[in-house]
Amino acid sequence: MDIKIAVGQRIKELRKIRDITQEQLAYISELDRTYINSVENGRRNISIVNLEKITIGLKVKLDDFFDDKLF
Amino acid sequence: MDIKIAVGQRIKELRKIRDITQEQLAYISELDRTYINSVENGRRNISIVNLEKITIGLKVKLDDFFDDKLF
Repeated sequence: MDIKIAVGQRIKELRKIRDITQEQLAYISELDRTYINSVENGRRNISIVNLEKITIGLKVKLDDFFDDKLF
Repeated sequence: MDIKIAVGQRIKELRKIRDITQEQLAYISELDRTYINSVENGRRNISIVNLEKITIGLKVKLDDFFDDKLF
């Protein structure tokens, strides 16, 4: 699976588990909601700095983020 | 630690464990040697696509890549 799509699906999955909206994740991660939306839909080749911001916002460590069948 | 620096140190650490040069890693990862050098020195906000190429080149899964005291 394309890594951009896998990362997007994982972010959406974790966001839903945390029961927060894209808006709330954008706010916590200090990123734009439309950016979060495009990342979740596999349309962004996200940078490590932004990925770290999102994983911090989702309260998940990077190794746990990637410890999933998607990767 | 700045995530760019941590990622760079981890790549260098794994590359040395695998006993390959930056040149060899660049070739396997289909990236430029000078890019590998700048990533290892924390000067690049690497994208997930390029990070995946490098982890494939290092024969390490992304969760194992981030499963380190650096992160």
